[in-house]
Amino acid sequence: MSTQTHAPLIATSQSMHFAAPLALQSGASLRDYTLAYETYGTLNADKSNAVLVCHALNASHHVAGVYANQAHSEGWWDNMMGPGKPVDTERFFVIGVNNLGSCFGSTGPMHTHPDTGQVYGADFPVVTVEDWVNAQALLLDALGIHQLAAVMGGSLGGMQALSWTLQHPERVRHAVVVASAPNLTAENIAFNEVARRAIVTDPDFHGGHFYQHGVVPKRGLRIARMVGHITYLSDDVMNEKFGRELRNAVADSATGYRYSTQDVEFQIESYLRYQGDKFSEYFDANTYLLITRALDYFDPARSYGGDLSAAFARTAAKFLLVSFTTDWRFSPARSREMVRALLDNQRDVSYAEIDAPHGHDAFLLDDARYMNVVRSYFERIAQETMHAGGAA
Amino acid sequence: MSTQTHAPLIATSQSMHFAAPLALQSGASLRDYTLAYETYGTLNADKSNAVLVCHALNASHHVAGVYANQAHSEGWWDNMMGPGKPVDTERFFVIGVNNLGSCFGSTGPMHTHPDTGQVYGADFPVVTVEDWVNAQALLLDALGIHQLAAVMGGSLGGMQALSWTLQHPERVRHAVVVASAPNLTAENIAFNEVARRAIVTDPDFHGGHFYQHGVVPKRGLRIARMVGHITYLSDDVMNEKFGRELRNAVADSATGYRYSTQDVEFQIESYLRYQGDKFSEYFDANTYLLITRALDYFDPARSYGGDLSAAFARTAAKFLLVSFTTDWRFSPARSREMVRALLDNQRDVSYAEIDAPHGHDAFLLDDARYMNVVRSYFERIAQETMHAGGAA
Repeated sequence: MSTQTHAPLIATSQSMHFAAPLALQSGASLRDYTLAYETYGTLNADKSNAVLVCHALNASHHVAGVYANQAHSEGWWDNMMGPGKPVDTERFFVIGVNNLGSCFGSTGPMHTHPDTGQVYGADFPVVTVEDWVNAQALLLDALGIHQLAAVMGGSLGGMQALSWTLQHPERVRHAVVVASAPNLTAENIAFNEVARRAIVTDPDFHGGHFYQHGVVPKRGLRIARMVGHITYLSDDVMNEKFGRELRNAVADSATGYRYSTQDVEFQIESYLRYQGDKFSEYFDANTYLLITRALDYFDPARSYGGDLSAAFARTAAKFLLVSFTTDWRFSPARSREMVRALLDNQRDVSYAEIDAPHGHDAFLLDDARYMNVVRSYFERIAQETMHAGGAA
Repeated sequence: MSTQTHAPLIATSQSMHFAAPLALQSGASLRDYTLAYETYGTLNADKSNAVLVCHALNASHHVAGVYANQAHSEGWWDNMMGPGKPVDTERFFVIGVNNLGSCFGSTGPMHTHPDTGQVYGADFPVVTVEDWVNAQALLLDALGIHQLAAVMGGSLGGMQALSWTLQHPERVRHAVVVASAPNLTAENIAFNEVARRAIVTDPDFHGGHFYQHGVVPKRGLRIARMVGHITYLSDDVMNEKFGRELRNAVADSATGYRYSTQDVEFQIESYLRYQGDKFSEYFDANTYLLITRALDYFDPARSYGGDLSAAFARTAAKFLLVSFTTDWRFSPARSREMVRALLDNQRDVSYAEIDAPHGHDAFLLDDARYMNVVRSYFERIAQETMHAGGAA
């Protein structure tokens, strides 16, 4: 661990407009679009120290640092990226990009469709992991970066990192794929479908054109978030944090129960309702549909008859994969599938299975072994980058 | 396995009215009520061969057999109970009782509140596992049965079987507790809460008085059932049955996808939607709230500071517990907790952990080892019953 003290990293949200249409995997296209992004650190002279960080479901391009004069504005992976942190912004030029279809700055369902002058809403085209990677590549082109020292992401972000190594093998030296999977299982898709049905069948959804009606399908968003949240946590950590604790036990009852089907009884209910309420205040319903669908669709082995080893023959990068023992959403078994398929292709792969109690959420949390694994790996990348002639 | 052929068991739904009020655990009471039940086989002269079968969430008193002239009307545990089956109705007198608060015949939210002349709806009092057991005991009194040869149930039914051994230890010789738990974990409660919120926030719920409005909160019921259904299955069996198969692959697309956030793409989505739709056609929303709450509340160790061994000191029965390896809703670890607590009290316990791929649903399915374990255990009960002087 670094013992130096560092000035806080101040983040600035930027955006870039792209006037040329983007052809999407579905056959549709976006006529023009904007990508919101942030960068931290300094791009070196030969532009060899760039690290692209891809975000998961409800995150954004605000990966690290804080916004000036804005309390509690830490980026979602601020424990991982910054001066002296495992991905050290004093050595690497880190880039976060908000994905198309999101609701945090890049063009998405809340923006105006240039052909109709109406808000896109449900008419925003379906976007895939591959589309996001293509858009990210165009941003890198505009920033003059041909090759990434590394692409890194957790969960859905890990899928993007993986897809980079398949779509643009020559542009990626290292891929860091954390708590991810080569595709969703039927159970994963099932949970996504529950969330989508909750949103779509909310009367306030109005077929995805709720903006015109001045309402938001909050009931559906709440349910979607509650379901999602359960799958991010492990059974163990839920028992440890909440167990069967009551919110307000009734003093003169032998059990403490108030005997109600609708009031909150257990702490876990209170927690979940709070998470659902909070989410429904800021997240766009159409974005939720798009992002869960991008998760469902990702499956690079699909056009190889399910043969992941064949799909991975295109890769040229070196890999670090990390999984967490209690993650039942993207279990270690899924990471091991990817490790095996890479080894089948004689790729350089490091793999760490971290014994952590926190379930899928562990990829966002501090864990000494996890942090050290990433730190060491980026030390190695920094060494290679310097030896290759770049001043990392 | 029996090689005899047996005439099909014809079931007849019966009901019994109770005019005396039933005091409930919550402090409320039911002024009068009806219990729907069925019996199979013949009660012997000394009434020593009775087996009470308790039902789980969406089942009923129709445990075994078929209704005369009604196709596909097999009881929910017809593979387990009947002539020559593991619980052999040629030896045992099997009783199924519909629980209070249900929507299949016993007094519940769809019935009329005797004090107001209005449909109960959300005013139906909260009922607990303990209340159900007390009502079942009153039915047995009316049938002249003092002691059960066995009480048996799976999942929530197993909780009732367990509760029988605590509330009426002298009335139970054997308890068969399948795929159950001594209480719900935080994760179990969390999934129940998602289901309840989906129902309660459906605008058609009308605070639980939707009957007057001529509507049913089907959106909420569908979501509730979809969530529930996922937790009944294992990840493995979902992958085996559905995997990532598409419903109607597009022929001229490289991936087969139709690229839609709202249409069905994957078979698992189609299956879940079908399950949700079917459930919403027949299940009562208030019943769903009541039954999930009964699950949440059950916790016999609660008044013993969480000490299950202390709670089980009251038991006098012999036990068979069964769990299934892939059941993540009521995992084998939960059954082992109960086994240990019973052994702490020197109780006679048999335990079988069945290696089955089907998750929680396995308790309803045919599995040779599972069926044989139950069959052998009931052979033993039959032997004991005969030696005790009864003509089993």
